[in-house]
Amino acid sequence: MKKTKTANNILVIHGPNLNMLGKREPEKYGSLSLEKINRNLKSQGKKLGLEVETFQSNQEGLIVEKIQKAMGTFSGLIINPAAYTHTSVAIRDALLLLDIPVIEVHISNIYKRESFRHRSMMADVVTGQVSGLGPGGYGLALAAMAEMVN
Amino acid sequence: MKKTKTANNILVIHGPNLNMLGKREPEKYGSLSLEKINRNLKSQGKKLGLEVETFQSNQEGLIVEKIQKAMGTFSGLIINPAAYTHTSVAIRDALLLLDIPVIEVHISNIYKRESFRHRSMMADVVTGQVSGLGPGGYGLALAAMAEMVN
Amino acid sequence: MKKTKTANNILVIHGPNLNMLGKREPEKYGSLSLEKINRNLKSQGKKLGLEVETFQSNQEGLIVEKIQKAMGTFSGLIINPAAYTHTSVAIRDALLLLDIPVIEVHISNIYKRESFRHRSMMADVVTGQVSGLGPGGYGLALAAMAEMVN
Amino acid sequence: MKKTKTANNILVIHGPNLNMLGKREPEKYGSLSLEKINRNLKSQGKKLGLEVETFQSNQEGLIVEKIQKAMGTFSGLIINPAAYTHTSVAIRDALLLLDIPVIEVHISNIYKRESFRHRSMMADVVTGQVSGLGPGGYGLALAAMAEMVN
Amino acid sequence: MKKTKTANNILVIHGPNLNMLGKREPEKYGSLSLEKINRNLKSQGKKLGLEVETFQSNQEGLIVEKIQKAMGTFSGLIINPAAYTHTSVAIRDALLLLDIPVIEVHISNIYKRESFRHRSMMADVVTGQVSGLGPGGYGLALAAMAEMVN
Amino acid sequence: MKKTKTANNILVIHGPNLNMLGKREPEKYGSLSLEKINRNLKSQGKKLGLEVETFQSNQEGLIVEKIQKAMGTFSGLIINPAAYTHTSVAIRDALLLLDIPVIEVHISNIYKRESFRHRSMMADVVTGQVSGLGPGGYGLALAAMAEMVN
Amino acid sequence: MKKTKTANNILVIHGPNLNMLGKREPEKYGSLSLEKINRNLKSQGKKLGLEVETFQSNQEGLIVEKIQKAMGTFSGLIINPAAYTHTSVAIRDALLLLDIPVIEVHISNIYKRESFRHRSMMADVVTGQVSGLGPGGYGLALAAMAEMVN
Amino acid sequence: MKKTKTANNILVIHGPNLNMLGKREPEKYGSLSLEKINRNLKSQGKKLGLEVETFQSNQEGLIVEKIQKAMGTFSGLIINPAAYTHTSVAIRDALLLLDIPVIEVHISNIYKRESFRHRSMMADVVTGQVSGLGPGGYGLALAAMAEMVN
Amino acid sequence: MKKTKTANNILVIHGPNLNMLGKREPEKYGSLSLEKINRNLKSQGKKLGLEVETFQSNQEGLIVEKIQKAMGTFSGLIINPAAYTHTSVAIRDALLLLDIPVIEVHISNIYKRESFRHRSMMADVVTGQVSGLGPGGYGLALAAMAEMVN
Amino acid sequence: MKKTKTANNILVIHGPNLNMLGKREPEKYGSLSLEKINRNLKSQGKKLGLEVETFQSNQEGLIVEKIQKAMGTFSGLIINPAAYTHTSVAIRDALLLLDIPVIEVHISNIYKRESFRHRSMMADVVTGQVSGLGPGGYGLALAAMAEMVN
Amino acid sequence: MKKTKTANNILVIHGPNLNMLGKREPEKYGSLSLEKINRNLKSQGKKLGLEVETFQSNQEGLIVEKIQKAMGTFSGLIINPAAYTHTSVAIRDALLLLDIPVIEVHISNIYKRESFRHRSMMADVVTGQVSGLGPGGYGLALAAMAEMVN
Amino acid sequence: MKKTKTANNILVIHGPNLNMLGKREPEKYGSLSLEKINRNLKSQGKKLGLEVETFQSNQEGLIVEKIQKAMGTFSGLIINPAAYTHTSVAIRDALLLLDIPVIEVHISNIYKRESFRHRSMMADVVTGQVSGLGPGGYGLALAAMAEMVN
Repeated sequence: MKKTKTANNILVIHGPNLNMLGKREPEKYGSLSLEKINRNLKSQGKKLGLEVETFQSNQEGLIVEKIQKAMGTFSGLIINPAAYTHTSVAIRDALLLLDIPVIEVHISNIYKRESFRHRSMMADVVTGQVSGLGPGGYGLALAAMAEMVN
Repeated sequence: MKKTKTANNILVIHGPNLNMLGKREPEKYGSLSLEKINRNLKSQGKKLGLEVETFQSNQEGLIVEKIQKAMGTFSGLIINPAAYTHTSVAIRDALLLLDIPVIEVHISNIYKRESFRHRSMMADVVTGQVSGLGPGGYGLALAAMAEMVN
Repeated sequence: MKKTKTANNILVIHGPNLNMLGKREPEKYGSLSLEKINRNLKSQGKKLGLEVETFQSNQEGLIVEKIQKAMGTFSGLIINPAAYTHTSVAIRDALLLLDIPVIEVHISNIYKRESFRHRSMMADVVTGQVSGLGPGGYGLALAAMAEMVN
Repeated sequence: MKKTKTANNILVIHGPNLNMLGKREPEKYGSLSLEKINRNLKSQGKKLGLEVETFQSNQEGLIVEKIQKAMGTFSGLIINPAAYTHTSVAIRDALLLLDIPVIEVHISNIYKRESFRHRSMMADVVTGQVSGLGPGGYGLALAAMAEMVN
Repeated sequence: MKKTKTANNILVIHGPNLNMLGKREPEKYGSLSLEKINRNLKSQGKKLGLEVETFQSNQEGLIVEKIQKAMGTFSGLIINPAAYTHTSVAIRDALLLLDIPVIEVHISNIYKRESFRHRSMMADVVTGQVSGLGPGGYGLALAAMAEMVN
Repeated sequence: MKKTKTANNILVIHGPNLNMLGKREPEKYGSLSLEKINRNLKSQGKKLGLEVETFQSNQEGLIVEKIQKAMGTFSGLIINPAAYTHTSVAIRDALLLLDIPVIEVHISNIYKRESFRHRSMMADVVTGQVSGLGPGGYGLALAAMAEMVN
Repeated sequence: MKKTKTANNILVIHGPNLNMLGKREPEKYGSLSLEKINRNLKSQGKKLGLEVETFQSNQEGLIVEKIQKAMGTFSGLIINPAAYTHTSVAIRDALLLLDIPVIEVHISNIYKRESFRHRSMMADVVTGQVSGLGPGGYGLALAAMAEMVN
Repeated sequence: MKKTKTANNILVIHGPNLNMLGKREPEKYGSLSLEKINRNLKSQGKKLGLEVETFQSNQEGLIVEKIQKAMGTFSGLIINPAAYTHTSVAIRDALLLLDIPVIEVHISNIYKRESFRHRSMMADVVTGQVSGLGPGGYGLALAAMAEMVN
Repeated sequence: MKKTKTANNILVIHGPNLNMLGKREPEKYGSLSLEKINRNLKSQGKKLGLEVETFQSNQEGLIVEKIQKAMGTFSGLIINPAAYTHTSVAIRDALLLLDIPVIEVHISNIYKRESFRHRSMMADVVTGQVSGLGPGGYGLALAAMAEMVN
Repeated sequence: MKKTKTANNILVIHGPNLNMLGKREPEKYGSLSLEKINRNLKSQGKKLGLEVETFQSNQEGLIVEKIQKAMGTFSGLIINPAAYTHTSVAIRDALLLLDIPVIEVHISNIYKRESFRHRSMMADVVTGQVSGLGPGGYGLALAAMAEMVN
Repeated sequence: MKKTKTANNILVIHGPNLNMLGKREPEKYGSLSLEKINRNLKSQGKKLGLEVETFQSNQEGLIVEKIQKAMGTFSGLIINPAAYTHTSVAIRDALLLLDIPVIEVHISNIYKRESFRHRSMMADVVTGQVSGLGPGGYGLALAAMAEMVN
Repeated sequence: MKKTKTANNILVIHGPNLNMLGKREPEKYGSLSLEKINRNLKSQGKKLGLEVETFQSNQEGLIVEKIQKAMGTFSGLIINPAAYTHTSVAIRDALLLLDIPVIEVHISNIYKRESFRHRSMMADVVTGQVSGLGPGGYGLALAAMAEMVN
């Protein structure tokens, strides 16, 4: 299915409450807004020869559907499932449908937080994780993605 | 409330990612599309004297609301909650509102998969289960339902 | 942010299936409809000098977004997360964004029900809980809220 | 047995170490002394048409015996079992002997403290709980009790 | 080994205490006797072009040996291991020797009963399960078997 | 069914390895042989107006069948399931078929032995237990049975 | 120390809430009052050549001290620790000081009740148990004790 | 009791489904039939001065009885309890009656299989184990036995 | 509060059954009586410039109250909670009220005993522990206390 | 202590068996040798203005000592503790001594492997993790480190 | 890599504290010294046409490195990891690098000892185990190895 | 073996990272360097008539070997296994070889730290513990040791 794609494009999905980035708790998540993070990823993508599309939703079902639509459309997926990391079998199942590289990103170090955040329902079905390295973690994931899809 | 119903009608609910049936992983879920499964159920229903309505959603909340609306409207419910099987107390609670027979269907044998799939939040509030018998499991559930509602 | 608010207003959020209150299982949840409960809260609020807004949703994501919007808008939050009490990290994360008092309400005594209902994902991030005291529990929470915000 | 009672009277039991309220750790339990709390409950009771008797003990066995004596004497029981909440089967058994409404009160939010405090041996045998709302939680319980016994 | 078989024949094995069906607890297991169930299966089999043999034993070892003898003799196996469902590694091991479809049947919904009945030692080595649909569950399994072996 | 019985008769079942009583490990089980224990029970029964039948088997399935045959034939059952105490759902299920008093006997104190012996699969479906009181425990059970069936 | 005793005397200890026997919940504990049970034990003791002393307390510490005083004074101890069965290491430690036979009695079958009642802190330090056989269980224990001390 | 034995004789017991060795799954258990293994053991025994008797059963109870009869008759026991390894307290209890060396043999490496196979109910009551070394493991056990009994 | 104290005085609390020290089980607890231990502590205290008061009780509630009274009266607390070590949240809560050094002493090594003795409810709220060093452990604790309070 | 450092230098520590990289199992760890990975890191470091020192050891104690020596000498630490990730409290304790950024790297996705590899003893004491992104993960960590220390 | 080997040579590795064999606790480990065991293995090897090299270390890292060096040098490995059996992921990882048969030996029966010794980190990555058969277990392993490598 | 010793000498072993004492985190471990602690112990020893030798290592294997060499050389061992407390079966096994008194020392209160530090692999094989009393805990252990070996 990848044949019909004319360029390497990467989908970045942000899960619930990430639309609030920069608005509260900067000590935990940094002071960058999600809009700024997205702009940074798009311009970094351009330098790496990647077209970056971003998506945020607070709704599990809509994230599932966005992933479904990534089939045959995108060359790679970067996803920060946020709160759904720990609970969503539905997102996991959608990821299982894909055959492109997937990188899971967490802004904060989830192992420094409550114990229920230590388990990721996605960890064993993604390619790899970047965790605890702040908003810059997205950029590292994009750099890794560039290596994989080029 | 059943009195106001003029015929025996059965609701079939398909949970998240089942809209992708036949599009990926046929070795796990069979090669039938959901549309074909639904058509088969409707024509089988006709032979059994049952009107079959089908519904799919990737959103937990919309499935909850569809079940709520089944009160007093349908004579039986067949549900494959898919990923929500293992996590949704909300769907369980909606099922608790009903007083019609409910059959839980799983296309694949959930006990051959990851251990978190072995627990169903629905299993003890439904009438019975059919699991691991492929898309044909829906038809078996419909046949059982015919016995119960006639 | 509270400075821009001209009066003490309280948000009351009802989770999934609570729109069915009074329609089924009155022995478990009382015979009051949600509409009646909401009307009672608004008139009780008026006596306490509080403006009460109510909201019900069956969708986890919409509840998350309603909570996000409460930042800087409301002086207090009363929430009955219903089924999402036991599973939703997303709602918990949204509550963590707030710095206003939050009271968790349960109409029935959750400790008399299935063991998976004994764990609340919210309990350690709210101010307090009122549980098992019927629909009147909302009123007690509102009275407590009046003490806190005045 | 209630027939012999001439008025609605409510027993309030305070468990171990609550005699120290106001003397240490006001940030956790408020600065009100137990004596002041009891006086407040009595005067609030009067307004609600309830006679309030209060009792404090650090001894599990004496609390058991006080509950035994409440049979046929009181219309309702409000109990803060404090440390015995988490360990006392004997108090639970005494509560099982009663057929009057019982409300469990905790001044602080027990879910914000050590994990062994999350389990209450009483929670599934009382009518309901009020937790984390400070010394005012007793008053809310008394208001709820007034609704139940009148 | 199937080559030497001249027709599609199905073995139905009933585990311990199922010889008492219809004699006690009809509210749990229905009022049909095992003899009647077996007769029904044989006549249903005839219609489906299947020869049905039935076997009941209260002894784990004899069930093991019956399964061993099914190798190369039967085209499919329907088994209700009853109490041995939850404990018998020996029956599981015998099933592992077979390469024909196997369907596990439970008359009652095992998830509505004691928690030790929720685990089946067979579930992940059979093709599928039918559970909670009463004695009619055997017939559904036979219908599914007809699909598989024809 | 009890009506057709002409006298109060009691069945005593001994589980696996109890046929070796008195032959090995007298310090654990006493030095009485099973034959002597049975003779004692029969003569004690005569004094209590009870006819006592005894049965020993090392085979789970045969014990199941003996219990099945007790339906409508015996007024009470005393059972020492020995090793099967901890593993047999089949014997438990057979006991569930009976509606006569059942007393579980253990010669040694099972709580002084390996931890897997602390759980009895029978304990919550029998009337009561006598444990750790040596071979004399059978006699105590018979005395208790006399009280119940007369 | 036994030398100074002039006759075989047996101590019977009743734990918390057993002073309420016969006053509430006769369906669970029988309709006999504790006084009546004690009188019965004394007269049965006389027939068996045993002097019986009885003691009831709701206080763990007083039961501990009563057991301490039994050293060198009594030939046997029968104890129903009631609620303290499941929690008291202190009573267990006191029992460990004795070198006389000790029989644990429970009136109801503790395995038919809440799971926390299934564990006895005493079970592995007493000689044996009698459980679920009603108030008559005390008498059986006394009969067994007579065998042991004579 | 050993005195009456005229020569060193060794009993070899094979548990359930081992009669199928060589007939199915040779990649897991080797292609040797049980008959061939037994012949090999007998001829190896002759060289070591040991008389070897072999026994296979699929029935737990019959294995129990064979072990009971080994008392005073055999100098050593080699046992592959197969599926009963993980579940049979009855076989364990029978082994506890013996005072001769006992070696537990497993043909395949049980730690490479399902987790429930990692626990052996026999492991702590036998002398030692040989596991994962194929059918040749029996021969190693026999060689070890020769060392012990000579 | 310490200002009103004229000298450094230390409270030593002994929990349940420690009044029996030296009377039973000297191999476990040494042959010193509690009276002798207390006398030794007082005279050692004198040398260290510390006034030592000792207290023993078998009642949880009285120990709680003794600790409460230590507030503002003593400079340090040495406590051997004995059996209450493992169960008493009430004593823990009382210790939490103090702001003086507290040392937990165990005469025997609690890690060589039953597993339920390995958990101390006090361990994380005291300053430190001395365990397994016999009655001399009290003296070591007093020496350590002298360092802390001087 | 950082003041005495003249340039930003980064220590990279490789744990046990990583000296075998490229020599075995390239499908799991890539075909790059450790020497090549180290050379790449040094040249990448040069471009980022960082001096990179590398160290490999199979001995837990030597890794501990290398980390101790990093105090005041390095500006950042990248560590792949390999097998010691899951077991070494000693390495964790050494990391706790540092106050420089630490990034944990895993070449393969540890969540796709045995469950005991899912727990990292380091995860909650490091700044962040990069996992599953192959040998390139080291480079990403170095890039992130450059951001942090510049 | 095996091609360069001119003869079948076997490496035998002994883990920590095994250098003390014969010096202490002969009742647990036999009275043979490690030197004697090694000499026996070498002479037995000669008879079997195998060259035997032995190695003992108390250091996990040195054992890891010895295993690494076995790649391409030895035809088989016999290892008694002793205390590291239960804790060393590093040794497990080194074993995973090998593609020669590996037999795990334990002198004593690890299932008769503390429960933490029942889990072997090696068991599922070795070919098989010999356990509880004394120092002679090494010889049995060598005999089995001869079968495999010849 | 003690006979050949001419004086009472005590070995003090310090585990990993304790060489850093006084260099970092004084609030947790005190500001004393290890050298100072050792000097203090030697001079205290002299006063008590004990020769004190000290040893520190970060390597598990070297600590094992130091303990092995203590056999027959030292009269007592004081050990602070630090991080290896919680993981090292090898050190435990070495301690099991000794028949001299062993006291385990922890500078900080391990029960106030991460839960994995609450379990000591040594606790049940040493004579006793001193924990949470700062560097002075070594001195208390030495004083206790003097009592034991003199």
